[in-house]
Amino acid sequence: MTHTEMLAAYPKDLGGIDKDKLADCIAACFECAQTCTACADACLSEDMVAELTKCIRTNLDCADICLATGNVLSRHTGYDANITRAFLEACATACRACADECGRHADMHDHCRICAEACRRCETACRELIGSLG
Amino acid sequence: MTHTEMLAAYPKDLGGIDKDKLADCIAACFECAQTCTACADACLSEDMVAELTKCIRTNLDCADICLATGNVLSRHTGYDANITRAFLEACATACRACADECGRHADMHDHCRICAEACRRCETACRELIGSLG
Amino acid sequence: MTHTEMLAAYPKDLGGIDKDKLADCIAACFECAQTCTACADACLSEDMVAELTKCIRTNLDCADICLATGNVLSRHTGYDANITRAFLEACATACRACADECGRHADMHDHCRICAEACRRCETACRELIGSLG
Amino acid sequence: MTHTEMLAAYPKDLGGIDKDKLADCIAACFECAQTCTACADACLSEDMVAELTKCIRTNLDCADICLATGNVLSRHTGYDANITRAFLEACATACRACADECGRHADMHDHCRICAEACRRCETACRELIGSLG
Repeated sequence: MTHTEMLAAYPKDLGGIDKDKLADCIAACFECAQTCTACADACLSEDMVAELTKCIRTNLDCADICLATGNVLSRHTGYDANITRAFLEACATACRACADECGRHADMHDHCRICAEACRRCETACRELIGSLG
Repeated sequence: MTHTEMLAAYPKDLGGIDKDKLADCIAACFECAQTCTACADACLSEDMVAELTKCIRTNLDCADICLATGNVLSRHTGYDANITRAFLEACATACRACADECGRHADMHDHCRICAEACRRCETACRELIGSLG
Repeated sequence: MTHTEMLAAYPKDLGGIDKDKLADCIAACFECAQTCTACADACLSEDMVAELTKCIRTNLDCADICLATGNVLSRHTGYDANITRAFLEACATACRACADECGRHADMHDHCRICAEACRRCETACRELIGSLG
Repeated sequence: MTHTEMLAAYPKDLGGIDKDKLADCIAACFECAQTCTACADACLSEDMVAELTKCIRTNLDCADICLATGNVLSRHTGYDANITRAFLEACATACRACADECGRHADMHDHCRICAEACRRCETACRELIGSLG
């Protein structure tokens, strides 16, 4: 992704935010969103879909908040730490729930294993960024 | 909107959630999202756009979380109160920030006045629903 | 929704677009998006979910394009009829497919009946607006 | 992104679709969405924002359709070539318009140059995939 180039091209100061943690978190959010959307669809195609409905639902929620958070982190104008923190907290919560739920099916379904890992990475990236907001 | 019909048509039990507060909050989220998207665009067309950049940015953030929250509230399968609460908290935070920011321009711009009111309604609906989650 | 108030509050001219058809289409897009998201979730909770996977998938696609189209129609600054038409065409295509798919289950599932109707309304609203773009 | 791993982990057949072109297009859509969101925000922070309002608006439209298209391409269950083609056509149209608009400011603003390139790549990826749908 060109997100690091775009951070460097932002014409004003980015404020006190940790640029590396920010860049990591933007990438993690979009990766996790795509992975969750794909995992929900892969679950839908499994013969045992009836046992994966909670996983599908959690995937859909996680994809929604990851996209919203990825968007918020891509904006720097009129920065409001309270808003950023609120998105990151919600995103970390959804990512943890989705990682746990996908983790339950990771042995049986490769898409759930890959998705659980993407969710863990995104949760970690969100918490790292929250910790750096001061 | 047909959201109340869809709530009634959900084939399983909705759980202990307050259906009226839920329906109000779904409607408020989608209304606020559309209003914020339109307000960002109306600000963009103002001659004094340079003074409205923080308002535009806050509008965009608020629209993103309102859509994500409206989606989450439209799902009932595999309900997880922690996820719902996390979205609602983030949504209430963004709505308050956007209501405050738009409120600063409400005397001068009718779109900011209408948007501030939609944000206040959505913040209230989110907090009412949070309070009822138990 | 406050979308008609927001149209009236837009500070510049809306161009030659038919305001009533525009307002109808904005409302139809957001209603259809919410209904499709709810219908996907209701299908997910049905015991016969394994027979509804195509319906769920089409619902998710339709929700995505309805939100994107509702957003585009909520913006008037820097209007480009080619972009608006392209979104409306994609939205009408997805709405027709979703109406057809939900229609197959309308006798059995009330959520599919309601959703098929919302999709038909949205398809009609999109085609009416396309016809008025000139 | 883990999108190629997710394609490989899809439990059923992907149909006749060209997997390499599909993977390229998914990546291009999410990259373009993030870049457009960031470019809209960077434009908003420019002192000459009043001259960039059409660029901001086109960025926002392009981001919306790129996310919607990226989502559709991430789903394979219940595949409908008509829906996929409709999203891809709309996405290619918006990407071309955004590439043209950003291209006008590419000499002056690095974020517009990067964004124009991302839009061109995404337009190309969409058209390549359309061409392979048969």
